[in-house]
Amino acid sequence: MAEQSFHVAVVGATGAVGQQMLDTLDRLDFPIKTIKLLSSKRSAGKKISFKGEELTVEEAKPESFDGVQLALFSAGGSVSKALAPEAVKRGAIVVDNTSAYRMDNEVPLVVPEVNEDALDDHKGIIANPNCSTIQMVAALEPIRKEYGISKLIVSTYQAVSGAGTEAVDEMYEQSRQILDGEDIDPKVLPVSGDEKHYQIAFNAVPQIDVFTENGFTFEEMKMINETKKITGDSSMNVAATCVRLPVETGHSESIYIEVEKDGLSTDKVKQLMEKAPGVTLQDKPEEQLYPLASDAKGKDDIFVGRIRQDLDEKNGFHLWVVADNLLKGAALNSVQIAFSLVQKGLLK
Amino acid sequence: MAEQSFHVAVVGATGAVGQQMLDTLDRLDFPIKTIKLLSSKRSAGKKISFKGEELTVEEAKPESFDGVQLALFSAGGSVSKALAPEAVKRGAIVVDNTSAYRMDNEVPLVVPEVNEDALDDHKGIIANPNCSTIQMVAALEPIRKEYGISKLIVSTYQAVSGAGTEAVDEMYEQSRQILDGEDIDPKVLPVSGDEKHYQIAFNAVPQIDVFTENGFTFEEMKMINETKKITGDSSMNVAATCVRLPVETGHSESIYIEVEKDGLSTDKVKQLMEKAPGVTLQDKPEEQLYPLASDAKGKDDIFVGRIRQDLDEKNGFHLWVVADNLLKGAALNSVQIAFSLVQKGLLK
Repeated sequence: MAEQSFHVAVVGATGAVGQQMLDTLDRLDFPIKTIKLLSSKRSAGKKISFKGEELTVEEAKPESFDGVQLALFSAGGSVSKALAPEAVKRGAIVVDNTSAYRMDNEVPLVVPEVNEDALDDHKGIIANPNCSTIQMVAALEPIRKEYGISKLIVSTYQAVSGAGTEAVDEMYEQSRQILDGEDIDPKVLPVSGDEKHYQIAFNAVPQIDVFTENGFTFEEMKMINETKKITGDSSMNVAATCVRLPVETGHSESIYIEVEKDGLSTDKVKQLMEKAPGVTLQDKPEEQLYPLASDAKGKDDIFVGRIRQDLDEKNGFHLWVVADNLLKGAALNSVQIAFSLVQKGLLK
Repeated sequence: MAEQSFHVAVVGATGAVGQQMLDTLDRLDFPIKTIKLLSSKRSAGKKISFKGEELTVEEAKPESFDGVQLALFSAGGSVSKALAPEAVKRGAIVVDNTSAYRMDNEVPLVVPEVNEDALDDHKGIIANPNCSTIQMVAALEPIRKEYGISKLIVSTYQAVSGAGTEAVDEMYEQSRQILDGEDIDPKVLPVSGDEKHYQIAFNAVPQIDVFTENGFTFEEMKMINETKKITGDSSMNVAATCVRLPVETGHSESIYIEVEKDGLSTDKVKQLMEKAPGVTLQDKPEEQLYPLASDAKGKDDIFVGRIRQDLDEKNGFHLWVVADNLLKGAALNSVQIAFSLVQKGLLK
């Protein structure tokens, strides 16, 4: 039987994540019959090469999705809100990398290593979780499945590429200005749409996304709410503090968990990580081996190390989890969802 | 009555902390009769100006302390081990900024805002705590005193100046090399004396000081053990994950605490911080006001913000605490101890 192949559209093809989606589709050899690159009006007309062919980016419109079977969206929440339903209406399955539909009860929020079967109930749109959530839940799932997690406290060390290419440019430009003793003029970070902008070069900024009423930022609330939705475990206590760093790509996370069942040890956590799909254990303190953002960049895996049992709480464990926020945190996870859809026979 | 003044020695006068000690003694007008600048053999002969006078740094030897009443040590643990007892033998009180004596039962470990009265029992040597510990315990003390703290989990975001001037130089040089597309050759960080060295520019490195047997680093164990000693509360559960960032000066900390007594609220924590000595509250999410390392540099205060009640645990609170690691984290705290000694009539 000839392998099926599909009509694919990538919305937001010119952005940081869109580029990684194209690279990942190519690299993992997703079965593509035709591919259409779509974007906002502003970026339409740009040329992008894919598998050696030069393609012109078109403005995304409802009609753009005629005949499309799989549409990967990563062009901001408002584009997804406006066009994802149009794509579905025309018969496409949408994998949406924005936050637009993540907490929608009708929309599965999927990390294939954790809840692939949630895809079975899709109604056309599937949401890709927030970057910082994906790497955390995928790394913790083998522990959660076997021991249960009652409490999870995470402090993040997040890269600027999560805020887009403008943020990356600002970080590098600002770094050079500071090295040269020049004045800086922050305009993008921490949140391009928020009122104030702060120095990111040689700094640590405890704000990602805007603030909510309860004092947590939206990024922190995403980690809290999405973790509960993906795992299906709403009784888990989750808290997050999200911090932006002058790192281009690669989110790091300092995670503390308390498990429900007795008997877990540092060695057992290491064994679980060694067997976990998509996870690489990097944990040899005696050789100074631990995950680093600089090593994780460009890699598909989630790296886990610094695994320690708490000194007081026998069911408490500390971990350091690092992944490429544009790959496993975004593009790779979206493409993995697409592969799962194919494998399950859901993509028609 | 004429104010008393004292014969002072600064050991490690040419280092990053030593320089800040001299600045702080000058700026806070510590009553100095004479001052002697001491260092290792390597740095002896250097000239340093103090209060408009050019002083020559001398090699620290036992006899250097003849006639000295107060000796501020910050030249590394081995120098303190060798010479602090010699200084005491000659009648000086030593305030030691290294880790050499911190966990010694005979040596008070002092943050004046927390346990000034521990000075009363000194036997000649007083230890200045680790930088990351000082800002944390000083900020938390008003909460601990009134509500008790049962659990404390901290993830740090630490500046390179804590690892000395060589580390600062390496960070800036490496940043420029990366911006210029050149190869880098890490030689100092994360720990100059350890086997392997990693990129610090545009990275986050989860190792400060060498590893101990239990998988925690010495820096993490310092935070755990020193917090218990300073507060006198050995039943408090404390855990730390210490991470080095490409920030020159200013340690940030993401802290989670659980208090023992019911009734604490976010507003009450803010009120306690507003009244806390040496603490400045910076917490207005609606105006994007929160502590930043870039703002804290060069300031004496500890800055506290991002105060949030945990969403599940009513006695759980999250805070973001930032301070200049060379000032409150080192030099300022040492000089504050010296002032406390004067005020208590202990310096003779």
